[in-house]
Amino acid sequence: MPFQHDAAQSIKQKGPTLDKKIRVFAPATVANVACGFDIMGFAIEHPGDEVEMTLTERKGVVISKIIGDEGKLPLDADKNTVGIVVKYLLEKVRSKYGVKITLYKQMPLGSGLGSSAASAVASLCAANELLARYEPEKALRREELLPFAMEGERLACGSAHADNVAPALMGGFVLIRSYDPLDVVRIPTPEALRATVIHPHVEVQTRDARSILRKQISLKDAIVQWGNTAGLVAGLWQCDFDLIGRSMQDVIIEPIRSILIPGFDAVKANAMYAGALGCGISGSGPSVFALSRNQEIAEEVGRKMQNAFGALNIDSEVYVSPINRQGPRIIE
Amino acid sequence: MPFQHDAAQSIKQKGPTLDKKIRVFAPATVANVACGFDIMGFAIEHPGDEVEMTLTERKGVVISKIIGDEGKLPLDADKNTVGIVVKYLLEKVRSKYGVKITLYKQMPLGSGLGSSAASAVASLCAANELLARYEPEKALRREELLPFAMEGERLACGSAHADNVAPALMGGFVLIRSYDPLDVVRIPTPEALRATVIHPHVEVQTRDARSILRKQISLKDAIVQWGNTAGLVAGLWQCDFDLIGRSMQDVIIEPIRSILIPGFDAVKANAMYAGALGCGISGSGPSVFALSRNQEIAEEVGRKMQNAFGALNIDSEVYVSPINRQGPRIIE
Repeated sequence: MPFQHDAAQSIKQKGPTLDKKIRVFAPATVANVACGFDIMGFAIEHPGDEVEMTLTERKGVVISKIIGDEGKLPLDADKNTVGIVVKYLLEKVRSKYGVKITLYKQMPLGSGLGSSAASAVASLCAANELLARYEPEKALRREELLPFAMEGERLACGSAHADNVAPALMGGFVLIRSYDPLDVVRIPTPEALRATVIHPHVEVQTRDARSILRKQISLKDAIVQWGNTAGLVAGLWQCDFDLIGRSMQDVIIEPIRSILIPGFDAVKANAMYAGALGCGISGSGPSVFALSRNQEIAEEVGRKMQNAFGALNIDSEVYVSPINRQGPRIIE
Repeated sequence: MPFQHDAAQSIKQKGPTLDKKIRVFAPATVANVACGFDIMGFAIEHPGDEVEMTLTERKGVVISKIIGDEGKLPLDADKNTVGIVVKYLLEKVRSKYGVKITLYKQMPLGSGLGSSAASAVASLCAANELLARYEPEKALRREELLPFAMEGERLACGSAHADNVAPALMGGFVLIRSYDPLDVVRIPTPEALRATVIHPHVEVQTRDARSILRKQISLKDAIVQWGNTAGLVAGLWQCDFDLIGRSMQDVIIEPIRSILIPGFDAVKANAMYAGALGCGISGSGPSVFALSRNQEIAEEVGRKMQNAFGALNIDSEVYVSPINRQGPRIIE
């Protein structure tokens, strides 16, 4: 059910006696998806972050509490993605209100699962939903929130990339055809497709993961890569699992970034041996993801990936999930 | 109706009294399709080349006549793509026969319309059809002819690329997801889609067009390009003409190769002004193609492109055509 539609219903049902408070969940996302560096991403069912937001008469954005971040995130709204994106939004639409935010951080920071994107999207959707209820003429369509979420990414990792925030916001598998102008396309996915995502307890900074990439690449490699991005879209459209698998090859980014993830080659080998269609780095890592043709294989893939990290004494969490088509949702 | 199926019917209907002769047409093709350098191509209805082939008791391949090439093509079967591809095929399947070939060259050489591909595919399909009739256990499936046709391209233009021969052989819009191993995917196209192709009377050698390309490109440009290849496939699948148009942008090859085509910028500007979805170089040029959302616009695009070349005193032919879904066909 579309998010905006929910909002409209709430107004009619509950009227102005409503508490001006809302809680919204936004999902983790897998960006890049092997061959689609900077242009592809998809949302998963869990984990994700939650934002509780209260509309205040006093303008401005206050982060009153962050739970689950082990004290790592700043409470200063200008330095935290959940604060800055809403500040931009409220300023842009000239809202007469401010907000007070509690962030429930339910996914690891710097994991490659789009943690900052989930927080930013949850925060933006909460604010927009409150606008829809109390200043309805100022509420935006969901896709119009995307540029604000991208600004959050600029704060969080130095580049306004959209391959986490777009799927977190819109749900499903998303292609960012172009950044200038922004052009986002939803790609349908096979019903049975399952993602396995494993988060090993090692640290990779997104900024580092980006800075080690070569600025020049060979035309030959680029041709291989754009054959694969085109192939992956074709495979998803025609529900051709084998084509999806054959297309999930990254000859440009993975050979470099995988060096930052201890055991990556063994983890990938185990995933493929267990029957995954393909396997790659989730975002800039250290999480690794695989796609599989059903739940059973996806779970086995998760166990085998965990074994490979385990052999190096690296703890990890595994998430198995369908593609999350809904995106963010109101919890209460 | 599939080519192979035709063949099977002929055997039953006509029996062994058949003259061991056949004539096959194979279509011109547009390779690269703006963003899809080396990985995309589509077939058009006309022009195309025709090959008349007679099975001979004596082994070996003889080119007895070439009509329409103004004496430019060699009769030596080892030096002509129509000869060499059939030689490879007959050797590979250990046929007991040889063939005698007449090539009706009905499209310009070095035009960027896949002239050598059309000849090679017509020749291979003719030979395979004769095999189907007289040594049926040795006939191949149509897609199995592709590697032979690619060898013809190696002879004709120095590189065994598939983006002309694959659509000429299989018809339709084709993605070559990978060359190693070869992985060819048919992409559906909107019924109403029309191609306009204009061949200006100027000369560009494919070898030159390839040698001027940079071997290294920026990662930034490559990301733009693979966003567009993915977007073009998505646009074709979902019959989204606007997305097709937005995706038909080549930031890597066109800026370099277009220098070899006098008037290219004006021709493209005229095509876009006339309502084309997108416009680019056909193969390695000098032909230029555009895609449009219907026949009427495609014809107007052709007139406007011709005007632009005309303003530079460059003569040209224009072809307007749907995407040719059938590929090669038996004429008699």
